[in-house]
Amino acid sequence: MVSVRKKISVIGSGFTGATTALMVAQKELGDVVLVDIPDMENPTKGRALDMAEAAPVQGFDARVTGTSDYADTKDSDLVIITAGIARKPGMSRDDLVNTNAKIMKSVTKEIVKYSPNAIIVVLTNPVDAMTYTVYKASGFPRERVIGQSGVLDTARFRAFVAEELNISVKDITGFVLGGHGDDMVPLTRYSYAGGIPLEKLISPERLEEIVQRTRTGGGEIVNLLGNGSAYYAPAASLAVMAEAILKDQRRILPSIAYLEGEYGYQEIYLGVPTVLGGKGMEEIIELDLTDEEKIQLDKSADSVKKVIDILE
Amino acid sequence: MVSVRKKISVIGSGFTGATTALMVAQKELGDVVLVDIPDMENPTKGRALDMAEAAPVQGFDARVTGTSDYADTKDSDLVIITAGIARKPGMSRDDLVNTNAKIMKSVTKEIVKYSPNAIIVVLTNPVDAMTYTVYKASGFPRERVIGQSGVLDTARFRAFVAEELNISVKDITGFVLGGHGDDMVPLTRYSYAGGIPLEKLISPERLEEIVQRTRTGGGEIVNLLGNGSAYYAPAASLAVMAEAILKDQRRILPSIAYLEGEYGYQEIYLGVPTVLGGKGMEEIIELDLTDEEKIQLDKSADSVKKVIDILE
Amino acid sequence: MVSVRKKISVIGSGFTGATTALMVAQKELGDVVLVDIPDMENPTKGRALDMAEAAPVQGFDARVTGTSDYADTKDSDLVIITAGIARKPGMSRDDLVNTNAKIMKSVTKEIVKYSPNAIIVVLTNPVDAMTYTVYKASGFPRERVIGQSGVLDTARFRAFVAEELNISVKDITGFVLGGHGDDMVPLTRYSYAGGIPLEKLISPERLEEIVQRTRTGGGEIVNLLGNGSAYYAPAASLAVMAEAILKDQRRILPSIAYLEGEYGYQEIYLGVPTVLGGKGMEEIIELDLTDEEKIQLDKSADSVKKVIDILE
Amino acid sequence: MVSVRKKISVIGSGFTGATTALMVAQKELGDVVLVDIPDMENPTKGRALDMAEAAPVQGFDARVTGTSDYADTKDSDLVIITAGIARKPGMSRDDLVNTNAKIMKSVTKEIVKYSPNAIIVVLTNPVDAMTYTVYKASGFPRERVIGQSGVLDTARFRAFVAEELNISVKDITGFVLGGHGDDMVPLTRYSYAGGIPLEKLISPERLEEIVQRTRTGGGEIVNLLGNGSAYYAPAASLAVMAEAILKDQRRILPSIAYLEGEYGYQEIYLGVPTVLGGKGMEEIIELDLTDEEKIQLDKSADSVKKVIDILE
Repeated sequence: MVSVRKKISVIGSGFTGATTALMVAQKELGDVVLVDIPDMENPTKGRALDMAEAAPVQGFDARVTGTSDYADTKDSDLVIITAGIARKPGMSRDDLVNTNAKIMKSVTKEIVKYSPNAIIVVLTNPVDAMTYTVYKASGFPRERVIGQSGVLDTARFRAFVAEELNISVKDITGFVLGGHGDDMVPLTRYSYAGGIPLEKLISPERLEEIVQRTRTGGGEIVNLLGNGSAYYAPAASLAVMAEAILKDQRRILPSIAYLEGEYGYQEIYLGVPTVLGGKGMEEIIELDLTDEEKIQLDKSADSVKKVIDILE
Repeated sequence: MVSVRKKISVIGSGFTGATTALMVAQKELGDVVLVDIPDMENPTKGRALDMAEAAPVQGFDARVTGTSDYADTKDSDLVIITAGIARKPGMSRDDLVNTNAKIMKSVTKEIVKYSPNAIIVVLTNPVDAMTYTVYKASGFPRERVIGQSGVLDTARFRAFVAEELNISVKDITGFVLGGHGDDMVPLTRYSYAGGIPLEKLISPERLEEIVQRTRTGGGEIVNLLGNGSAYYAPAASLAVMAEAILKDQRRILPSIAYLEGEYGYQEIYLGVPTVLGGKGMEEIIELDLTDEEKIQLDKSADSVKKVIDILE
Repeated sequence: MVSVRKKISVIGSGFTGATTALMVAQKELGDVVLVDIPDMENPTKGRALDMAEAAPVQGFDARVTGTSDYADTKDSDLVIITAGIARKPGMSRDDLVNTNAKIMKSVTKEIVKYSPNAIIVVLTNPVDAMTYTVYKASGFPRERVIGQSGVLDTARFRAFVAEELNISVKDITGFVLGGHGDDMVPLTRYSYAGGIPLEKLISPERLEEIVQRTRTGGGEIVNLLGNGSAYYAPAASLAVMAEAILKDQRRILPSIAYLEGEYGYQEIYLGVPTVLGGKGMEEIIELDLTDEEKIQLDKSADSVKKVIDILE
Repeated sequence: MVSVRKKISVIGSGFTGATTALMVAQKELGDVVLVDIPDMENPTKGRALDMAEAAPVQGFDARVTGTSDYADTKDSDLVIITAGIARKPGMSRDDLVNTNAKIMKSVTKEIVKYSPNAIIVVLTNPVDAMTYTVYKASGFPRERVIGQSGVLDTARFRAFVAEELNISVKDITGFVLGGHGDDMVPLTRYSYAGGIPLEKLISPERLEEIVQRTRTGGGEIVNLLGNGSAYYAPAASLAVMAEAILKDQRRILPSIAYLEGEYGYQEIYLGVPTVLGGKGMEEIIELDLTDEEKIQLDKSADSVKKVIDILE
């Protein structure tokens, strides 16, 4: 059977988009097309070329190209959307939402035109609402439109716990539901070190501090950088979702998924445990929640709904 | 025997330094300390933290921390210097050289103080002169002070050839001597695709175009980016040199090495084929050159000398 | 700092020993010396040479050599013991124990002579008693003498669960205490798929079947092979323990560790959760057990004691 | 686009077949089916299960199953044939050829029946004639029937040179034409260390010794093992060919390819430099040979023809 390389398009050539392109290429998941607006065409080409020049040294076989022409994304297997603006001082939340929603719609139109069978993963914030926007604009089935938030949130949590316990990051797991950041619903009872519930290894107070640090993990980086936001861990999170899908691994990873009754919600994108495989978001895993968790998740869902309301 | 993780300090937390830190960490070569000046302390910490948060997702065990305090680099096995300014419009070459030389001296003093047994790899431009400066300032033996240029130059060359022939980057090799960029002396007769000399696969004119593109490869990226210069391929180059040293691989890689008679030169840092292993630059491999290659290499050496003269 | 490759000696060049050598080399943990008795010197050299010839293709830098002379193991950082006989039809258990104990003593004497600071990992069965024998014969502190059993048992369990749920092996974890095989004490309440307790995903009856299959997992392979026993998964288990130690990863992995009061036992080697890092077995993690688990663990400890009694 | 895992069937569950299955699985190239005759069904299942149990520890997502029913190989993307008997003392060469040819025909019939679009890679000896037999029996185009010999021969050569020069195997390349073993035509002028022709680094006498050792490299292992032949390096060679094809890498690797005029030969399978990619053997690279090389290659081709004559 003829084998053809897969094709992954990354929309947005900022630090996160570019780093995602690099990490996807490093994994040899396929050829990568980095896309940005015409004004950014040259820098996009420059970043892609720089990565292509890293390939011989790192030993990965993946063509990486930059473009502002969506025709170059034709027949992508996977499209990752990182495009969008960050909230600037003085900008209202509604303005942010509406500006990025407009970008999502425009980007999605191009994706659908050139890659009608692609799976789409969205990173742009506010991610729940932006994934919803892409879903509506694409007309794709829900398994092919997914948002990223929980892989990153748990990555941060795992890093903090690994440091706290001085244990390999390989053996720490975390578990979150709900929205990104402040709206995150941590399930520490499903978080472990070497399989041992963290609650047995870390005091409740300290664990709560770590959860709180995780919630504000994005802001912590923003504050430190002074200018800009995190991109290494977000890119790594996108790359692992891409790998699960493109290699049909059926991994259990938290995703922003479209709910049709799961967890008692309808027609809303929310962070839940999912199975990611060759078809995209193949399953949503439903868990029994404690009353407190359910209250927090309701609050998270309300937040998302409010943002979606802004959209319409 | 107790095993202790190695320690790598990367001086300069700009894009190249940060990307180098990431790639060194991804290879699990040891724990990484990213260092910058006090004014940059918070952004440096931010980038390091962002990488540390990528570790659980990428599955690498390496602590990455940011600092402006050289005490944190204590007992580094390897120090990579990426610090320095880029040439700005209107800045004379002498000003660039002298400014960066001052930075090298100051950085080296701190390295020697805290890690008297470290091996140092220098990236800062003009790299031949800056490696020389570090060598003189450190008082280290020549095997422990090395500059990077040829791994990057050949990486670019290999990427261009792979694209030209539509062949895996894994099977393309390149070979350069001399200085970085314009002063690069390409040995195309020692450059191959799957072991076949490129001269048998690519016309002389086309090969010359590729060589010329390689020479100006750094500038090509600068022009495309508009603001800033390449960092992915430079970082990958540094990481592979670090790996060869820290894993004692005895790889044949081109380095900027201090010559004591090799190739007919004395007391000058120049790009030559070297063996990189656990002791640093363990051997210089001397090749017979054609007359034309020798002329080019002399020219390259003259260039380096002129820059060194500025220093003194 | 000069970097020197680590050295790992694997005692016993049968399928398990040889496959362990390969997997350790593939990970580039250091140079590997494969050791067997003088009668097996040539086959041992043959296997090692075959592996060394695989290195260029697989791209790993690790010298692999075969020998029957322990002088070649001098200054090993880590020694893995796979030597010993398998129980043959008609052989009493006591005969097996005593024969392998004699082999352990003889091997240990040589290890101590040439590598007095090495860390030792034992695979030979019955592994609890053989690790005890090596511990006593070596005079090493307990952190430097460890047995393998739980990594393999949980590997089997994870493979069966991954198949049952059709989920990536990357997301399945398992947890066992006690002895190997029949004496294994599974803690299914600490076993997860994507962090979700297996008890929520698999019926108690089916989970019990999987546990039972795990207990007899070694026998299942023996029966299928007809001649010989498992070696791929045992070797992979040893290699991951070696990696945790040699890269100082501080991973939480189940090991056969010498107990000095932990879990209420004294002077006995038993499978418990441990932290493996650069010093070897750096910590034993104590868990609260249910009454039933404690009863099972007592039974497991009794089994081990009975075998140790045979030794004396 | 839905992503579906690729499927690789390995025919023959002996050491080489089993090790190939492992290495293909470790690379996550797809799911692996290990096939042997009904009499070997249980051992085949046992080896496959043992590998599947190694997957959680090594972290690779690939189902490995054993079978004696070719229906389980249905829709394989790639089939690797390692089945066949080894020459036994007293067995004539003709008997070996005819026995293995019969096996090839029978195996090929099943492959064609269940995987009419597969690419086939043959390892069984005498490999040139066996690949020819499979080609004829399959009716497949030549790009989909390839034999392995040069990757292994150069691997051995590279290992010997790396040891001789004490240089990383990563930087040594080799180049051969013609048949396997005795009939191998080494092109040492196309063999390098770090791009430097070996002829500049090793004396002609010593290089000739290394070439001669390479020629008899298979026999060297047979003699050492006493019973059986090499399997690690052969398996690694098959796995790298599989990777080049399934990841569409377009690597330049030596293959046993069907010649239709190339190098002046017609209708014969012979070792030549090829490009392996998603379509299989995508190109044959023709080189100018010296008179001596041409004489050796003619001799090699004659050998192959004599074996093919036995077949008919």
